[in-house]
Amino acid sequence: MDYKGQHILSTKQFDRDGLLELFEEAKEMESGGGGLSGKLMATLFYEPSTRTRFSFESAMLRLGGGIISNADMVATSSHRKKESLEDTGKVVSQMVDVIVVRHPEEGSVAELVGKSDVPVINAGDGAGEHPTQGLLDLYTVWKEKGDLDGLTWGMVGDLKNGRVPHSQADLLKYFDVKFVYVSPPGLEMPEKYRAGNYSESNDLREVIGEMDVIAMTRVQSERFKNEEEYKKYAGSYVLDAGMMKGAKKDAMVLHPLPRVDEIAVEVDSDPRAKYFEQVKNGVFVRMALLAKVLKG
Amino acid sequence: MDYKGQHILSTKQFDRDGLLELFEEAKEMESGGGGLSGKLMATLFYEPSTRTRFSFESAMLRLGGGIISNADMVATSSHRKKESLEDTGKVVSQMVDVIVVRHPEEGSVAELVGKSDVPVINAGDGAGEHPTQGLLDLYTVWKEKGDLDGLTWGMVGDLKNGRVPHSQADLLKYFDVKFVYVSPPGLEMPEKYRAGNYSESNDLREVIGEMDVIAMTRVQSERFKNEEEYKKYAGSYVLDAGMMKGAKKDAMVLHPLPRVDEIAVEVDSDPRAKYFEQVKNGVFVRMALLAKVLKG
Amino acid sequence: MDYKGQHILSTKQFDRDGLLELFEEAKEMESGGGGLSGKLMATLFYEPSTRTRFSFESAMLRLGGGIISNADMVATSSHRKKESLEDTGKVVSQMVDVIVVRHPEEGSVAELVGKSDVPVINAGDGAGEHPTQGLLDLYTVWKEKGDLDGLTWGMVGDLKNGRVPHSQADLLKYFDVKFVYVSPPGLEMPEKYRAGNYSESNDLREVIGEMDVIAMTRVQSERFKNEEEYKKYAGSYVLDAGMMKGAKKDAMVLHPLPRVDEIAVEVDSDPRAKYFEQVKNGVFVRMALLAKVLKG
Repeated sequence: MDYKGQHILSTKQFDRDGLLELFEEAKEMESGGGGLSGKLMATLFYEPSTRTRFSFESAMLRLGGGIISNADMVATSSHRKKESLEDTGKVVSQMVDVIVVRHPEEGSVAELVGKSDVPVINAGDGAGEHPTQGLLDLYTVWKEKGDLDGLTWGMVGDLKNGRVPHSQADLLKYFDVKFVYVSPPGLEMPEKYRAGNYSESNDLREVIGEMDVIAMTRVQSERFKNEEEYKKYAGSYVLDAGMMKGAKKDAMVLHPLPRVDEIAVEVDSDPRAKYFEQVKNGVFVRMALLAKVLKG
Repeated sequence: MDYKGQHILSTKQFDRDGLLELFEEAKEMESGGGGLSGKLMATLFYEPSTRTRFSFESAMLRLGGGIISNADMVATSSHRKKESLEDTGKVVSQMVDVIVVRHPEEGSVAELVGKSDVPVINAGDGAGEHPTQGLLDLYTVWKEKGDLDGLTWGMVGDLKNGRVPHSQADLLKYFDVKFVYVSPPGLEMPEKYRAGNYSESNDLREVIGEMDVIAMTRVQSERFKNEEEYKKYAGSYVLDAGMMKGAKKDAMVLHPLPRVDEIAVEVDSDPRAKYFEQVKNGVFVRMALLAKVLKG
Repeated sequence: MDYKGQHILSTKQFDRDGLLELFEEAKEMESGGGGLSGKLMATLFYEPSTRTRFSFESAMLRLGGGIISNADMVATSSHRKKESLEDTGKVVSQMVDVIVVRHPEEGSVAELVGKSDVPVINAGDGAGEHPTQGLLDLYTVWKEKGDLDGLTWGMVGDLKNGRVPHSQADLLKYFDVKFVYVSPPGLEMPEKYRAGNYSESNDLREVIGEMDVIAMTRVQSERFKNEEEYKKYAGSYVLDAGMMKGAKKDAMVLHPLPRVDEIAVEVDSDPRAKYFEQVKNGVFVRMALLAKVLKG
């Protein structure tokens, strides 16, 4: 697929071929970037996310390009002078070759795209999308397993509200994957994200042994009806060394980070823990995407 | 004129020849920069201005130089430890080759210049000057019209308090330009900025047909005596599609941005709207200026 | 000594040979850097320090590397999501080649180092260390005097609480230096930092004539018992033109900056004032250190 000059707003812009092509290019990026010398990227962050901003900036610099950065648009931009997002996008697009935007409100990135003369990449818009996160999740598994078809992909935690499992589900529909959804009652995967072949459980311990991929998500205590309900379920969504004993020898643990309590620190030294590896892969995937958007 | 090693604090440092020379070089910059590899620029912003900071940073990167940036000096600098502006300028000048400063208080940039060992460029000091804005306004017109002599230059809005019209007036005195000042009563162009050949009006609709350049400025409601007064005049300073029908076919609409209500969004698609083009030109003018200051 | 891949957390990692080798390399850096093209540095500042951040960033850019910057980790990072410092270090180390950290709390930098996969440089951790400051102090004197052995090194101000004099003392123990400690009563140099050959005084005027190096430090008024006590001593720790009359013709005045009142502005034009020169030297020392850590 040709992404040259395109805005990247949603995982829906990728299909099976598009994904596999991107992954091949991300893999090539691991042995060195370049090719974007003289190109400039602006990062406009309307909410803090050092991790995501650093990843995009690292990607652009490794490609030989330059970066112009605003880590806190709310405090330091003409946002305060009530300029429309559409005008901000148009203005910044006069000065750089690609724009990366993060915003706490769904739909805001699309608004900023409105009149932009250069490609805009969505780096997360609240309850909306964060397409590059989904791409790096799949890339991490694809790179290690060599394939996505035939895998059993577990998703664990708050599957109702989590942007990460929804984004994975959207992308994995192009592959022959069996899903295992594990969530507390009331936080189940919504109908619209359920793919054909899936099973469901409230108890991670019972089903962890089936999973090739254990994709963890935060479970926020305030999502539960009451403290009692929380205590009843919380424990079963914490991944620790004991829980890992039940997992496959070649399982892969994913997490979007930052993690709080849902993965015990002791798991970090388990070779199946891949969440820090995901961070590294995020740079390669973003390099591939920036190259595709700017050079085709 | 030789600007090598000079501080750029005021439009008064430019005369007709200096301006035309700068414009020729800005035009060359449009086909590619370079030449400042190994040089570093620091941006010290004591008030937010993403647009101006990005423009200078884009310019420096396109010239091959590096940037070190502080978008919020008030929050994150030794400003809080009560270091004098003079000391800050001296200190930063030990680490970079050129400094770009924005400050909310008139005269502050001159203070910071005090002991600097490298050139300092004023990127706006409150009610004081913002010389590169004036330069890019003139450049935008010069590039399109091929000349500034013989034009009728309209200035619209709060001409009493606006830094932008004052800066344009200071620079245009070197050219054979006829001015049309349009402002609400009480917000007229001050005597000291009035050039020889001008007319004046309170009503944009009446005089818009004479203008080759329609240089718009914000009119802030709090400048009016009362709500009634505001309502009486505000409408006549809003540029919309209807108002544009009375303008010349080859007129050019300028605005420093961000705009709020004073230009309707529908005007954006009018080919005479040049305010986003100005943003692009700002990068080229700043490239030319940085090159002149650092290389001569 | 081989610093390749090492974290730089403390002055204690340097001995006489290590220091002299670093100084020779810093001196070479003065005639041009380079060699780190393709390498990336992240700056993570949990408290503001424009001076230190700019110095490291200038150093990295002059070496040809790239920078990714967070000037205010507290406001804009996942710090707010309660990620551990250890996780932050691990995560950022997936994206860059070296990390520079500033934190207001002693020990925090060591915590962040915990699982980092790349070298971390301590740029100040509260009451703890700020090793590159000590290195640039010694480098400034070594470069000018050609040697550190045989010098009389005066330290003036709050020697009890000052991180700067402690850091100098730690490094100077490898050289044959005579110390003169000058402090108000109650703010004397602690036992553990006192080196073999020293004298002590409460009055700068009395002993300034002995010093080859006059290393000034801030004396904060709140460190005194009461206003009366403060007034009694404060004057004798202010370096002005009168006080400088008593100093050696080839003495060197050091100060970590920012200075408030402890050095009068009139001293700036005295050729013995070296505090702005120190800022410049800080860039060269940090270039040498970054090159050693990244290339060996």
